[in-house]
Amino acid sequence: MTSQQHQPSNVLYAQAGGPSAVLNASAAAVIETCRRHPQRFGRVFAAINGIKGVLEELLVDTATLDADALDSLKYHPGAAFEACRFDLDPMEDNPAQYERVLAVFKTYQIGYFFYNGGNGSMVTAQKVADYCSAHGHKVTCIGIPKTIDNDLALSHCSPGFGSAAKYLASSLLEATLDLYSMHNTSTRFFALEAMGRNAGWLAMAGGLIKQQIPNAPLIILPAERPFNREAFLQKVAAFFESHGYCTCIVSEGLVDINGDYISIENVEHTHLKDYTQLGGVAHTIAKIVANQFGCKTHSAVPDYLQRAASHWVSQTDWQLAYDAGVAAVNAALEGLHGVLPVVEVTSTDPFQWQFKTVELFAVADLEYRVEDSFISEDGMDITQAGLDYLRPLVQGERPLTYRDGLPNLRIMTFETVARQLPPYQAVK
Amino acid sequence: MTSQQHQPSNVLYAQAGGPSAVLNASAAAVIETCRRHPQRFGRVFAAINGIKGVLEELLVDTATLDADALDSLKYHPGAAFEACRFDLDPMEDNPAQYERVLAVFKTYQIGYFFYNGGNGSMVTAQKVADYCSAHGHKVTCIGIPKTIDNDLALSHCSPGFGSAAKYLASSLLEATLDLYSMHNTSTRFFALEAMGRNAGWLAMAGGLIKQQIPNAPLIILPAERPFNREAFLQKVAAFFESHGYCTCIVSEGLVDINGDYISIENVEHTHLKDYTQLGGVAHTIAKIVANQFGCKTHSAVPDYLQRAASHWVSQTDWQLAYDAGVAAVNAALEGLHGVLPVVEVTSTDPFQWQFKTVELFAVADLEYRVEDSFISEDGMDITQAGLDYLRPLVQGERPLTYRDGLPNLRIMTFETVARQLPPYQAVK
Repeated sequence: MTSQQHQPSNVLYAQAGGPSAVLNASAAAVIETCRRHPQRFGRVFAAINGIKGVLEELLVDTATLDADALDSLKYHPGAAFEACRFDLDPMEDNPAQYERVLAVFKTYQIGYFFYNGGNGSMVTAQKVADYCSAHGHKVTCIGIPKTIDNDLALSHCSPGFGSAAKYLASSLLEATLDLYSMHNTSTRFFALEAMGRNAGWLAMAGGLIKQQIPNAPLIILPAERPFNREAFLQKVAAFFESHGYCTCIVSEGLVDINGDYISIENVEHTHLKDYTQLGGVAHTIAKIVANQFGCKTHSAVPDYLQRAASHWVSQTDWQLAYDAGVAAVNAALEGLHGVLPVVEVTSTDPFQWQFKTVELFAVADLEYRVEDSFISEDGMDITQAGLDYLRPLVQGERPLTYRDGLPNLRIMTFETVARQLPPYQAVK
Repeated sequence: MTSQQHQPSNVLYAQAGGPSAVLNASAAAVIETCRRHPQRFGRVFAAINGIKGVLEELLVDTATLDADALDSLKYHPGAAFEACRFDLDPMEDNPAQYERVLAVFKTYQIGYFFYNGGNGSMVTAQKVADYCSAHGHKVTCIGIPKTIDNDLALSHCSPGFGSAAKYLASSLLEATLDLYSMHNTSTRFFALEAMGRNAGWLAMAGGLIKQQIPNAPLIILPAERPFNREAFLQKVAAFFESHGYCTCIVSEGLVDINGDYISIENVEHTHLKDYTQLGGVAHTIAKIVANQFGCKTHSAVPDYLQRAASHWVSQTDWQLAYDAGVAAVNAALEGLHGVLPVVEVTSTDPFQWQFKTVELFAVADLEYRVEDSFISEDGMDITQAGLDYLRPLVQGERPLTYRDGLPNLRIMTFETVARQLPPYQAVK
């Protein structure tokens, strides 16, 4: 569907869900690309705290960002505009929320809504856009992909994944060299925990250490394969025999054959709805090995470090994130609505890609898990096909800037526009 | 005591204890400096697995290392010659061990023994040297300092500490920006766990984020102060009130008022002698906050990553490690024996140092813990004096080299010389 708009409309950009190291590259891309089309795009606002900031009228006019600020934005870790983990209620439960969003959109003459988040929240965004359009205020909604977990369906990969993969593979490499140097008289097993609740992509990325350590005694435990304690211990024993040590990377969401999480205390429930917080499986795995073999083991849980590591950004991943922002704006320019730009590889050598668009609803309920052909038959290793898939995504580095010995980073704060509406009263 | 030797003697270099990111800079310095004095030093051997490799006659002739190999060595993470966690038995329990070492030293005409390790193992090394000398084979023993924990007494700081400090402060900075971006709708507390069993220096290093985040809502829990749950929760509550979030760095060896470890399951005993393996206190601290405030929390345990992070080496720390190796060889050239070169600051601005020597026995039983003047009165923050101490140690970066997207690292292996003695029979 193509539409011609003759009056420039204003733009709203928002972030949702967990950040990636390259999330803000997409933000910068949206802002820079919109600026190049003043005949189509008016003011470009960014919401603070995603859709929550829309409700609360916390909007930044990005015209206040000069070239320096945009450059800082491009490699800023975290969500510069403060991503939210907040979803609108179902429309029937809380129509007031939707009315409020409509009021904000009308007030700021928002005609384009770019939502940089996970699948679920993007569908919410589209519902908002549809609601507005149905009430006489036409809004074009375009998603921008982002996830370190790489679980976005219909896309070759997700912006954000390559950088976290680079961080994990590089960290595992360094730690494995440490382990190697100690294994004769001390620690013989090391486990690194990778994020990924249901998708083991980040654990698979550990396989990349084989580039630098051919024939590495590496065990990968992706979320896609239930943990088989006996087979695992047999493999550890075999590596102890052949190499004297064993290094391991494990998905935080590793489950046993019954589907129960293998993590500290098995499961931990937070006070937040029915969210199960994971973390600690690497420690559990290391303990299993220590108990079985009577040897010293170590484990590491990098947690946020893996997604905030702006110092180890993959330049390829960064470009994917930037291009995703550009593609979203281009989709709007083409008059598309309710779509998400996804990555399509056009050449494997050299690695080249383009963005195509898919319907937002088409990806909402899909989950891209590690392909069977990427996991070895024993479920604990990566195949050559898996390595071939991963390698291009971690390529390239950027020169780093430091200030007084630490990365030259700071908290970015933005002035929000003066409110024009009465304060938002949350209705439950 | 000064001695004149007119015949060049051979040299033995060995590594012991946990590696640091700059340990191998000291190794390279010993090799390069000895090569510059052929009239004093003959062949330079490196033992594989420290003193264990001496017993087993696992010796590398470092003459086989060309300039490229030495360059690789200089930034190699882990202990390139495989550090040992193995000490000789007390002499009265196992004289055969000492006889064996003497036999090896005689066979290889070792006249200089450079031991790059912790205090304890260096004393063992000196006992070996004394034993050899008492049995007609004079050996000069010189220690080379190394510890990421910074707990070496009589030295301004320890080579290895600055790089781990830089890693932790930089990681905490990145993770805190992530936390900041999420705190309005999700995680409000993040805890990073730093190594340091009894010394909180690495936890204190987290204070450096204040350079980039002035007035950061940061809590530091160093090993030097018992954990006061109530005061801690009050401080978290105050930061939640003032900033909305709180970031934290904690020593793995944090204890409560009774001296018991605050870590997962409190304590975990391995099968190895009476060694208590720590790790998990960050998770425990995060859980305490989650339970108290009903909010989402996160924690990270970088473990080996912090000491293997050759990609985040402090150039100052690297130079200290290199200079320590040079100083050890210079001490031998001066005819000293049984000494350890330690860091003495000669200028604070610019930061400059020299090495002086202290008696090995003088530092053996001392432990350098964080100075009181560096810890705030409430025990949970760093003072300006503490920041002033830390800042120079993390300065400087080196250009990184990558291969195929990952750090250009590999396992370094070395050919050992053909054995001249019968195999070692361990006697217990």
